[in-house]
Amino acid sequence: MKFRLIIKIISLIVLIETLLMVPGLLISLFMHEALAVHGFIRTMAGMAVFGGVGFLLNRNVRTARFYAREGLVTTGLTWLVLSMFGALPFYISGAIPHYVDAVFETASGFTTTGSSILTNVEAMPHGLLFWRSFTHWTGGMGVLVFLMAIVSLGGKNQGFTLHILRAESPGPAVGKMVPRMKDTAKILYLIYIGLTIANFLFLVIGKMPVFDAACTALGTAGTGGFGVKNDSMASYSPYLQNVTTVFMLLFSVNFSVYYLILMKKFKDAFLDEEFRWFWFLVFVSITLIAWNVRPLYGTLEETVRHSAFTVGTVMSTSGFATTDFDLWPSFSKALLLFLMVGGACAGSTGGGMKQVRFLLLFKSLRRNIHKSLHPSEVNSIQVNNRPIDEGIIENTTAYLIAYVIIIVVSVLIISLDGFSFETNFSAILATFNNIGPGLAAVGPTCNFSAYSDVSKIVMIFCMLAGRLEIYPILVLFSPSTWKKAR
Amino acid sequence: MKFRLIIKIISLIVLIETLLMVPGLLISLFMHEALAVHGFIRTMAGMAVFGGVGFLLNRNVRTARFYAREGLVTTGLTWLVLSMFGALPFYISGAIPHYVDAVFETASGFTTTGSSILTNVEAMPHGLLFWRSFTHWTGGMGVLVFLMAIVSLGGKNQGFTLHILRAESPGPAVGKMVPRMKDTAKILYLIYIGLTIANFLFLVIGKMPVFDAACTALGTAGTGGFGVKNDSMASYSPYLQNVTTVFMLLFSVNFSVYYLILMKKFKDAFLDEEFRWFWFLVFVSITLIAWNVRPLYGTLEETVRHSAFTVGTVMSTSGFATTDFDLWPSFSKALLLFLMVGGACAGSTGGGMKQVRFLLLFKSLRRNIHKSLHPSEVNSIQVNNRPIDEGIIENTTAYLIAYVIIIVVSVLIISLDGFSFETNFSAILATFNNIGPGLAAVGPTCNFSAYSDVSKIVMIFCMLAGRLEIYPILVLFSPSTWKKAR
Repeated sequence: MKFRLIIKIISLIVLIETLLMVPGLLISLFMHEALAVHGFIRTMAGMAVFGGVGFLLNRNVRTARFYAREGLVTTGLTWLVLSMFGALPFYISGAIPHYVDAVFETASGFTTTGSSILTNVEAMPHGLLFWRSFTHWTGGMGVLVFLMAIVSLGGKNQGFTLHILRAESPGPAVGKMVPRMKDTAKILYLIYIGLTIANFLFLVIGKMPVFDAACTALGTAGTGGFGVKNDSMASYSPYLQNVTTVFMLLFSVNFSVYYLILMKKFKDAFLDEEFRWFWFLVFVSITLIAWNVRPLYGTLEETVRHSAFTVGTVMSTSGFATTDFDLWPSFSKALLLFLMVGGACAGSTGGGMKQVRFLLLFKSLRRNIHKSLHPSEVNSIQVNNRPIDEGIIENTTAYLIAYVIIIVVSVLIISLDGFSFETNFSAILATFNNIGPGLAAVGPTCNFSAYSDVSKIVMIFCMLAGRLEIYPILVLFSPSTWKKAR
Repeated sequence: MKFRLIIKIISLIVLIETLLMVPGLLISLFMHEALAVHGFIRTMAGMAVFGGVGFLLNRNVRTARFYAREGLVTTGLTWLVLSMFGALPFYISGAIPHYVDAVFETASGFTTTGSSILTNVEAMPHGLLFWRSFTHWTGGMGVLVFLMAIVSLGGKNQGFTLHILRAESPGPAVGKMVPRMKDTAKILYLIYIGLTIANFLFLVIGKMPVFDAACTALGTAGTGGFGVKNDSMASYSPYLQNVTTVFMLLFSVNFSVYYLILMKKFKDAFLDEEFRWFWFLVFVSITLIAWNVRPLYGTLEETVRHSAFTVGTVMSTSGFATTDFDLWPSFSKALLLFLMVGGACAGSTGGGMKQVRFLLLFKSLRRNIHKSLHPSEVNSIQVNNRPIDEGIIENTTAYLIAYVIIIVVSVLIISLDGFSFETNFSAILATFNNIGPGLAAVGPTCNFSAYSDVSKIVMIFCMLAGRLEIYPILVLFSPSTWKKAR
């Protein structure tokens, strides 16, 4: 394990995080929020020292020969460190007096989860509220970097190739993408920034206050879901709610589809299997839920608006709310729980298991049934008419196993706090899939503050594991990671 | 598809089922239960005609060249037909006035589930009560036949080889077992009958009424769980409860371990990985639950007795109850829900996913993590120090996928009836894993009668799919099953 190299990288990222706090600090200065300014300045000074020293001491460490193991460990540690430093402005300013709560809130931000322990969002200083929403946006961007960084680390069978931007790799030859990574990153960021600005403008046109619009657009882009109002989005106009529905879903789409559209390859974009499956699921779910909740709302418009918003918030794993869906009938609640598991498309800022994994798992099951009937036939699994490497199938099923095990263990631990099974199960699904609110005692009108510290730490772990596709967090706990390299 | 051959086999099995009703009929005659006698006689006459005609019309059909596809379809259809005919005595006698309810109860019997729609068990005629418990016992025996029949049908990569009696196949050469199948069947049945008689005697020694003891022993052997009292086992003495705990767990062990013990291969028996993992899980779960529920009971003896009984009833997937575990704290309830998924050992009469599958999935995940750290290494997965064929790993993960999909779809459908998520989720887990009672509105003091017919049919499907290891039921719905053979 190249510890000094890992420290160098993390130090650099802490320095970057220090810069990211500047907008929040400026807003607090402008609004004369003395405690928040105090919190920001002390944190930023500490981080500058930590990052500066860590970087200078290791500045001569060469970055060559960086293996998968180091890559995974660095990724896991980076997000942990980011959350632990990012929590300090909340803690030092006294806005969140308990440090574990502050880390929970910040990890929820960076992982674009949106689960909150705050009981009164509107009482927070504006600078901190902005920093809170800004963590969503940088987290979403971080995920896009992460996806590419991992591609360059892992080989063909690393399983992470699932997320490769398909636009860049027209054939099964994955390696081709790497040399052009910088270009791809630039295009990705431009799409991300462009969509965020468009979202902001649509909100401002709809007469949302500029500060609210900025925070909402940042939270939507990261598919995070931190709101600036205690009732999330419920008091905004139908127009603003519908704009948010549309943008939440737009940010859940694999960004390579936008790349294809920019390249004018419209046919390739619309024939993408995950893309079509995602929209099919969106429309079927909205229809089923609207039909199921129709007695609760006065007009068809209202019924469809709340159904579409809620399906959008769950499938994009954002977590905004316009209505208390915990009061919906059992069928809708069960459907929402399962949509939570599915989540968004791979290669987007959304969380969950990712729809393409479901496509792969479903195809793998279908192949298996076929094989049990016709044992002599051999078929490969195809997505977008290209055969999928068996290593990827293997990794996807391993992902499902890890997913199930983490949920079981986490639910058991947080059950010790005594809440109902529905609360605990949905709390873990909501944090692990980076959604935000769950059902019952962690429903959209409630928050996570009632859980014990141990449970909050478990959920912080779930948020990080879910965001980083499990492995970078899991390897931190694996003994073989810390063995001396052979 | 060889339809005439399938009809011949099913006809034969219907004739056998007719004979199996004789003990119930005799008891009803002896107890002067006129309606029950009427129900039995009309049913048996109808079955004799159906089975006789079906068999005679196809008596010349040769049994050669019977492929996996026909094997799976026959198995699925057989259990469906058994349940539909077996329900008739309840229906015709008027004891269960609604036919779907009667099929639910009978499918619950044959699949050794133990979920009931009866609100007052004690009002049932004795002959019908005995038939009800007897379905558990024949169902348990049927599963043992099924496991072997499938072995002889499937090839090395059929996935069903998981259940092969390891005693008979010391090496990876699975085919060796087949020629000795008849001997194996004989030994299996002797173990099954011997354990049942031992259970019956231990109960009678404890002063349980003979009729109760017979029904309880039959229900325990099949790990079914139909009781003859409205409070299940709660009013029996602690001794009788403890005897039942022990026998429930004994019937959850892979029968090949008993075979090894009979062969005096004690070391092989006790080193069996699934066997050790199963008992480890049993003791850990009892300890955790006893610690968690200690405030609810007066004495340590009572705490441990109820904890052990409940862990036994859930892990063996029996479904008897001595206490209303729906009133236990969240942690215990969550743990019980997850133990429901795990279930018993492969090659036993118990249900669930089977512990050996968990071992395999866990080892497969561990290998995958190791591979992501050390991409160049290639390792095979070993159980009991023997490498496992990759085809079996593939089938096990496909099993997990099918398992998850069936649960999601089933929970969604029954959610339309409006019960809570905890009720619906535990109802599907309890029927699919062949346990019996769930939590909340389907908890141990409640029953399944409040669900709609559609939901009951979904749960009948779940019971059959769970019992037959999913595939034989799944292929009934697969279009490629019904295509003309090439």
